[in-house]
Amino acid sequence: MPDQQRRISLNTDIGEGFGAWTMSDDNALLRRVTDANIACGFHAGDPSTMRRTCETAAANGVAVGAHVGFHDLRGFGRRYIAVPQEQLLDDLIYQLGALDGMARAVGTTVRYVKPHGALYHSAVARIEHAAAIVESIRQFDRGLPLLCQPGTRLARHAAEAGVPVLREGFIDRAYTRDGTLVPRGEPGAVISDPAAAVDQAVAMATTATVVSNDGTTIPMQVDSLCVHSDSPGAAAFADKTRAALESAGVAVASLPDIGTVP
Amino acid sequence: MPDQQRRISLNTDIGEGFGAWTMSDDNALLRRVTDANIACGFHAGDPSTMRRTCETAAANGVAVGAHVGFHDLRGFGRRYIAVPQEQLLDDLIYQLGALDGMARAVGTTVRYVKPHGALYHSAVARIEHAAAIVESIRQFDRGLPLLCQPGTRLARHAAEAGVPVLREGFIDRAYTRDGTLVPRGEPGAVISDPAAAVDQAVAMATTATVVSNDGTTIPMQVDSLCVHSDSPGAAAFADKTRAALESAGVAVASLPDIGTVP
Amino acid sequence: MPDQQRRISLNTDIGEGFGAWTMSDDNALLRRVTDANIACGFHAGDPSTMRRTCETAAANGVAVGAHVGFHDLRGFGRRYIAVPQEQLLDDLIYQLGALDGMARAVGTTVRYVKPHGALYHSAVARIEHAAAIVESIRQFDRGLPLLCQPGTRLARHAAEAGVPVLREGFIDRAYTRDGTLVPRGEPGAVISDPAAAVDQAVAMATTATVVSNDGTTIPMQVDSLCVHSDSPGAAAFADKTRAALESAGVAVASLPDIGTVP
Amino acid sequence: MPDQQRRISLNTDIGEGFGAWTMSDDNALLRRVTDANIACGFHAGDPSTMRRTCETAAANGVAVGAHVGFHDLRGFGRRYIAVPQEQLLDDLIYQLGALDGMARAVGTTVRYVKPHGALYHSAVARIEHAAAIVESIRQFDRGLPLLCQPGTRLARHAAEAGVPVLREGFIDRAYTRDGTLVPRGEPGAVISDPAAAVDQAVAMATTATVVSNDGTTIPMQVDSLCVHSDSPGAAAFADKTRAALESAGVAVASLPDIGTVP
Repeated sequence: MPDQQRRISLNTDIGEGFGAWTMSDDNALLRRVTDANIACGFHAGDPSTMRRTCETAAANGVAVGAHVGFHDLRGFGRRYIAVPQEQLLDDLIYQLGALDGMARAVGTTVRYVKPHGALYHSAVARIEHAAAIVESIRQFDRGLPLLCQPGTRLARHAAEAGVPVLREGFIDRAYTRDGTLVPRGEPGAVISDPAAAVDQAVAMATTATVVSNDGTTIPMQVDSLCVHSDSPGAAAFADKTRAALESAGVAVASLPDIGTVP
Repeated sequence: MPDQQRRISLNTDIGEGFGAWTMSDDNALLRRVTDANIACGFHAGDPSTMRRTCETAAANGVAVGAHVGFHDLRGFGRRYIAVPQEQLLDDLIYQLGALDGMARAVGTTVRYVKPHGALYHSAVARIEHAAAIVESIRQFDRGLPLLCQPGTRLARHAAEAGVPVLREGFIDRAYTRDGTLVPRGEPGAVISDPAAAVDQAVAMATTATVVSNDGTTIPMQVDSLCVHSDSPGAAAFADKTRAALESAGVAVASLPDIGTVP
Repeated sequence: MPDQQRRISLNTDIGEGFGAWTMSDDNALLRRVTDANIACGFHAGDPSTMRRTCETAAANGVAVGAHVGFHDLRGFGRRYIAVPQEQLLDDLIYQLGALDGMARAVGTTVRYVKPHGALYHSAVARIEHAAAIVESIRQFDRGLPLLCQPGTRLARHAAEAGVPVLREGFIDRAYTRDGTLVPRGEPGAVISDPAAAVDQAVAMATTATVVSNDGTTIPMQVDSLCVHSDSPGAAAFADKTRAALESAGVAVASLPDIGTVP
Repeated sequence: MPDQQRRISLNTDIGEGFGAWTMSDDNALLRRVTDANIACGFHAGDPSTMRRTCETAAANGVAVGAHVGFHDLRGFGRRYIAVPQEQLLDDLIYQLGALDGMARAVGTTVRYVKPHGALYHSAVARIEHAAAIVESIRQFDRGLPLLCQPGTRLARHAAEAGVPVLREGFIDRAYTRDGTLVPRGEPGAVISDPAAAVDQAVAMATTATVVSNDGTTIPMQVDSLCVHSDSPGAAAFADKTRAALESAGVAVASLPDIGTVP
């Protein structure tokens, strides 16, 4: 599918303020990405922040995704919580409903789901949390796709359950030979050289491959690349990534426009 | 409309637990009322409690209403909070979306909206909070009706904005001559004699009148009577009320079945 | 030390309401136990509940202990949370300070510390959470004792750090031959026969032994026995236990009175 | 008292982050002010932020004050909440105990109390909230002083109850002829010209007067001037204010050093 190969989405975590607190320059980022993973109030994001973020996303033609997380404002959703599967399922449906209600109030809808932080990590590793995410999508809206790293337990479980999977790639994280991420804390886990990170983005978008940490080129076909939002130079880096992709002949487009979203 | 006069709904506040805490005997009450005002997580009700309550309501043929409140678990939504109008609007849409998402997950939907506690009181008195409630319904789902006391600022504002109003009557609260409730704290505000309370319910349902605290019979046509859930004898009192209504030839039916809900 | 052997404390988890919600019959229990593990607002217990519980404890001559937990009202502190050690240390000092402030406001003070629920389990298993608990006591008040199960990593770590350890025994939980509890979920983990549970309490108090689940009598010297508060018959069971202990010649006394508390 | 007149404190609201969120450049400000009003976790400030802020304050010789507020993270304590007096009293003791526990853990103690945001406004206007603040200090530590605007109901109530009052002045807020602040929202309420604001600070510190909004010079003897922390140029403005005060021969010193704190 050469056509599909040449289109890619840029997603970012956004709407991560709470009340008087802000996290990143959301307006700047929403002019640069194509898909917005909007916090739903559990790890970040109060209802008014959610509205503003949905409105700005819609005004910029950015698709709204539900960035669901553990119920943990104090820890910003970055701490694992041993939530029983059934309880997590309910927490997820609550978040999906809340964000979709807000998105509809401003004239758009939730187009995909992406887990946040510790929940993402947990769902990659634990079948009960993967199952809760997949089941929440099935119960909320069977056709909603899940944005997640390909090759993981979560991606497989979603596919088996009939939930469409959108494949996420990481611009500034090193991959191992088997396609998993080098764990944070290990040497070279994060690609700190922006130019190298942009090169990795272009490689994934144009050749559907990535060079792993042992030098091997491995297949890595993805639909969307994650742009970090919470670093000072986030918007500038998004600009660089986007320009490099377009120079390489890649169309940067939102997940619904790429065609992989039903 | 004699037919309509002879049909009445019994609503109750329910799903008011949180986590390990419970508030009332929800299963018993959901076998006796016709319409359930389900807490949406802001003053009470966590996602799992919301699911269980929606499921039990649906299983008993009880209609699901969104019982929206101030964001105040500590105060159970009974403390006035000076929430700016726009922020309250967002809080309400969040709650409506969350409960509707859960209701849909179990095969039903939200059929009406009722404000809780201090928000109800505030919306009766303050135009900015009345306006936030009405606007939240317009933005979330224009056709959703609002259950509230007739003759209040809130009811008038809803009607003017094109939001259908379902009229709520109070079984155990005394009315003044002008149709408002005798404020709590004043003598005789609460009708403590169960038989007198049941009589008032039957009067409202059969004659569309109530005897006010100065002895005058005033018109009081209502669609639904509120049954308190948080007293020890709540289920038994609901039984008595229901039996008395049926003996008086009144059909006890849920708000959507009464026909006043679109 | 025969004298010490014949004195025992009865502790219970209490003050576990939150706002409008209550958990157990605190007044009844505080007339029966000698030591109150009072929730500090993180897993249960709001400031007003804390005051009431401290006041009632003091009025009954019951010693106040700080029942510290994970920050998790939704999960009642029963869900493991991967809190970093330094952050947990801070959360614990916050709870200790808050409860001690309230205890002093009503004329008493915090006399010991006991971890709650998932934090107790975690601290028995994980050195970083055990260390956070021990360090919180050292930073808050070096002389404050820790009430916990003897023979655990937590008890050893406390002793090594110079924090006094009060040994807790469980009335209705079965022990293995090595002195650990039979994990919940395994057959026979909970002693459901009240008479057998009372017998185990008397054995621990009079002979400093317990019969393990393979029939072996093992040493189990404890300072305090935990009486569950959240079952319907909690107060009645506390009465039975207390009566049986006193019939066996054991003095039921609070931890500070037993003499093991500095 | 010429000596006392020539000494003044600079206080600022600080430690107002929560979890992953930050509010102001606390390290920069704590090098410039003399007294730190540290958030206690109810409107802002988690336990780890509280520790860091106490440590940095202590390292800079800055006195720790308890900045107590309504329980309202979502609204940053800026929304009035109709908290019953007894409940507010308990909330305040909880906050005082928690911050004092943390301050003691890092080797310092709470030296004064200042209400935050909507609670400050409410306590100036409502006797029941003023009384709760004063009573919380009496119950927690009878000698602790209250930092608040002189001439208000709160200040009078504190003085009558034997709670020492530290008088707070506002650098960039206009005063009316009777010594109250021009309400926000009215023209000229905020002094937007930094030079004029600094002049007002120097006038209060050197002559114990201020020029009110009708041009009258009125007496305004204060112990501490409030430096805003949440504007971008806060640290630079603190520098300018401090330099101007010192040029005018005023010693900038912490409240305990000024001598008005017991």
